[in-house]
Amino acid sequence: MNDEIIYHMDQENLELTNPVMIVGLPGVGHVGKLVADHLIEALDAKKMIDIYSEHFPPQVMVKEDSTVELVGNRLYLAKTDKADLLILAGDSQSTDPAGHYSLCELYIGFASQFNVNRIFTLGGYPTGIVNEENYVIGAVNNVEMIDGLKEQGIQFNPSEPPGGIVGASGLILAFAKLRNIDAACLMGTTTGYIADPKSSKVLLGKLCGILDIEVNADALDEKIKNMDQIVEKLKDSVIGEDGEEYYESPASDEDLVYFG
Amino acid sequence: MNDEIIYHMDQENLELTNPVMIVGLPGVGHVGKLVADHLIEALDAKKMIDIYSEHFPPQVMVKEDSTVELVGNRLYLAKTDKADLLILAGDSQSTDPAGHYSLCELYIGFASQFNVNRIFTLGGYPTGIVNEENYVIGAVNNVEMIDGLKEQGIQFNPSEPPGGIVGASGLILAFAKLRNIDAACLMGTTTGYIADPKSSKVLLGKLCGILDIEVNADALDEKIKNMDQIVEKLKDSVIGEDGEEYYESPASDEDLVYFG
Amino acid sequence: MNDEIIYHMDQENLELTNPVMIVGLPGVGHVGKLVADHLIEALDAKKMIDIYSEHFPPQVMVKEDSTVELVGNRLYLAKTDKADLLILAGDSQSTDPAGHYSLCELYIGFASQFNVNRIFTLGGYPTGIVNEENYVIGAVNNVEMIDGLKEQGIQFNPSEPPGGIVGASGLILAFAKLRNIDAACLMGTTTGYIADPKSSKVLLGKLCGILDIEVNADALDEKIKNMDQIVEKLKDSVIGEDGEEYYESPASDEDLVYFG
Amino acid sequence: MNDEIIYHMDQENLELTNPVMIVGLPGVGHVGKLVADHLIEALDAKKMIDIYSEHFPPQVMVKEDSTVELVGNRLYLAKTDKADLLILAGDSQSTDPAGHYSLCELYIGFASQFNVNRIFTLGGYPTGIVNEENYVIGAVNNVEMIDGLKEQGIQFNPSEPPGGIVGASGLILAFAKLRNIDAACLMGTTTGYIADPKSSKVLLGKLCGILDIEVNADALDEKIKNMDQIVEKLKDSVIGEDGEEYYESPASDEDLVYFG
Repeated sequence: MNDEIIYHMDQENLELTNPVMIVGLPGVGHVGKLVADHLIEALDAKKMIDIYSEHFPPQVMVKEDSTVELVGNRLYLAKTDKADLLILAGDSQSTDPAGHYSLCELYIGFASQFNVNRIFTLGGYPTGIVNEENYVIGAVNNVEMIDGLKEQGIQFNPSEPPGGIVGASGLILAFAKLRNIDAACLMGTTTGYIADPKSSKVLLGKLCGILDIEVNADALDEKIKNMDQIVEKLKDSVIGEDGEEYYESPASDEDLVYFG
Repeated sequence: MNDEIIYHMDQENLELTNPVMIVGLPGVGHVGKLVADHLIEALDAKKMIDIYSEHFPPQVMVKEDSTVELVGNRLYLAKTDKADLLILAGDSQSTDPAGHYSLCELYIGFASQFNVNRIFTLGGYPTGIVNEENYVIGAVNNVEMIDGLKEQGIQFNPSEPPGGIVGASGLILAFAKLRNIDAACLMGTTTGYIADPKSSKVLLGKLCGILDIEVNADALDEKIKNMDQIVEKLKDSVIGEDGEEYYESPASDEDLVYFG
Repeated sequence: MNDEIIYHMDQENLELTNPVMIVGLPGVGHVGKLVADHLIEALDAKKMIDIYSEHFPPQVMVKEDSTVELVGNRLYLAKTDKADLLILAGDSQSTDPAGHYSLCELYIGFASQFNVNRIFTLGGYPTGIVNEENYVIGAVNNVEMIDGLKEQGIQFNPSEPPGGIVGASGLILAFAKLRNIDAACLMGTTTGYIADPKSSKVLLGKLCGILDIEVNADALDEKIKNMDQIVEKLKDSVIGEDGEEYYESPASDEDLVYFG
Repeated sequence: MNDEIIYHMDQENLELTNPVMIVGLPGVGHVGKLVADHLIEALDAKKMIDIYSEHFPPQVMVKEDSTVELVGNRLYLAKTDKADLLILAGDSQSTDPAGHYSLCELYIGFASQFNVNRIFTLGGYPTGIVNEENYVIGAVNNVEMIDGLKEQGIQFNPSEPPGGIVGASGLILAFAKLRNIDAACLMGTTTGYIADPKSSKVLLGKLCGILDIEVNADALDEKIKNMDQIVEKLKDSVIGEDGEEYYESPASDEDLVYFG
């Protein structure tokens, strides 16, 4: 670990068919992370690259067998009949602003090396509103992508999100443009308070439509059931001035706490 | 983006007449940024240089057409009959103290390269007072500039602002001195709570006087009207012990939130 | 101090028998630090290496004779009839995330240089519960260590601690794995509010069992007595909903404040 | 400003007699800064070196004539009949922990270059107690200095201050030891809430005793008078449980705000 960023690659030479990169890292409601983690499991993806960096927290996670694993990100490969998916998932984003730039440069380097033709970064879009119908909004690095994505039900609103997109989901779009790779950020609406598998399931559905693939969503349904029970326990919801239901305060139930 | 700072320059060799640099980056009340952005539009300035840096936030902005743009600063050229204006504007200042030094060194390098003979950095001066008559105070890197600026209505008060000038508006003056370029910081008074196009219009007027140019201010008037309506909604103003009117608390209306 | 990290080594060539590294740096309840400091005193360990770094706080400690000592960590050697113990102790962990990576790489380099065959990092595991029977939970970098440690009374619970292990105690396990050195993190349960010599004594007992050595614990007993008196002063304990006793608020008694 | 730290030296070759370095940078109660600034004025010291660094805040101060000055530190020379004083004073300490290490390395390099035989770093020691008789406590990097300093009325208490000494005042002692330069930190007791010229005057008196020089203290008396009037305005003092008088809350009067 003498270098700022290190990675271990298991296979250097890969023959990929229609390679598409999917990025689902920790973020708002863990909407994107839950989708990426689900894809890896449901499609039995194979880990290709481990990424460690001093820009990640100085931390290990403890696995079920009580062995430790250094915090990092990982690139997986899942082969489908329509596309080979390179799925970037992991435990954390950079702890410092500059680290986001270094790490996203690394990620986009992988996309370039594997001749990826499209990138989809997945995230959450916090609305603060509870019990709303989930939908997905998009932003792109090439205006020509918009019509096709609209056909798949992605919404595009002028200058939305108003605060821009922070972290890897946004930077990757900008860096991909410099390499002439089409990239879109797909954001599932979520309250923003808790991990939101319901939003993830909607986002997964849209992504599958875009990629023209089918993915079993049973494991996400299980997570939604668990989450519903937790939310049930939070009795403290109130009706806001706008008639919408809000949580009175950010949830502190331990089950909702997520790492990253 | 392997380097700490990168920039793309569209034209290396420029023949400029009486080149003056104007700096209006995000800051107190966005007074300086609003003037610079207005000048770019009103004078139909041409973008010459894009500046990106890992010292900026790891973030993209979403444009009206739903395409993204990496957070950065930009140098524009506006030709007037009295002076060629190099206008530095953008989305953000450095996120870390050291980055201010690196970025301002870059900016002053452009000033030097284009033989700029004067620099005006524009900012806001927070007074906390509402409904006050706006005025402009100045600080310089060469005492000989003061008389001329006073003639144009810029006020100079000993050791004011008492806390000094933080960020690019101040550092650029110090760095310009090392290169023997005259530079002044012009600060429009503002409450400090919200974006303040009214202060910007007063500052624009003084700057035009100094440069002996005329600039249509209609777009700023439009912004002032919008802002007045927003402020109207904020009923929570109170009368302070000194007889002045204050806002009870920093405004949190979404329309007032500004990026940077 | 021109380099990021410097260290002074008193002896380069050492003949060690069954070298084991013990790491007890400041952290939760100072449980690990108290054990390491106690071992150094009880076993009359000899200081071998001083480690200073700009990743430590810019601070000196004042010793009893009013002379100052730069904040740092230190590696000691204690010879026992069963093993030579390399004990890493000190005043602080890194002040910045990246520094943890640099410092732990240094520490693991010492382990490698001295042919250490096992590493035990010592820490605290905050439960928030007062007056509970102390126990020790473990995490390892090699699953084969678990059975032996269980025999010595170390508990292993799936994926515990749920938030992973932050700082040197965790990173060292991950880095040791890359060098094929078996390493375990042993965490004594503690309230998490105050320095906890009681937990340290339990942890010391387990460690001595693992190493098959005996260490006089009188000095720790003295510290426990002092701490009991301090806790007695804190009358503000309350009974939580779960029937357990909690402190009403983190203790602020000066005697409890610890550095690091 | 391409380098991390730059300095301009006016005179490289100086013949100094009994050179002693005095360090008075911003800190607790500005006790040390006020003494250093007073010495520079009272002894008509000559500025020798300007020190700028990206570790300082990205800020300029505005002087009385409305010209700006980049935040930095400065080394002055004051010749007395007993010793040549190299006085380090300035606007700020490092904004980041690592910067303290870099800057103190620079400072100690100057001490070495000018063959300084003793260093006195000046600071404040916060007691929280109002209206107490001011005294001065010391810490040293060489135990042999203590007896001489005690004769001049400096108090030495075991392991005091209990939290060590943070910033340049402490680091310089540690770094000086590596170069075999005797150094002491002299700390004037102060409430810790406000700039404290009264404590500075007591500290100045002790320092003059140690150096066997006389310095007119009229300007400090003026500052004490001003400060007394400000404190008079703060009616909110209360009697603490220990019978001592405390301020109810940290003073927020603008006159008391100090930069650094």
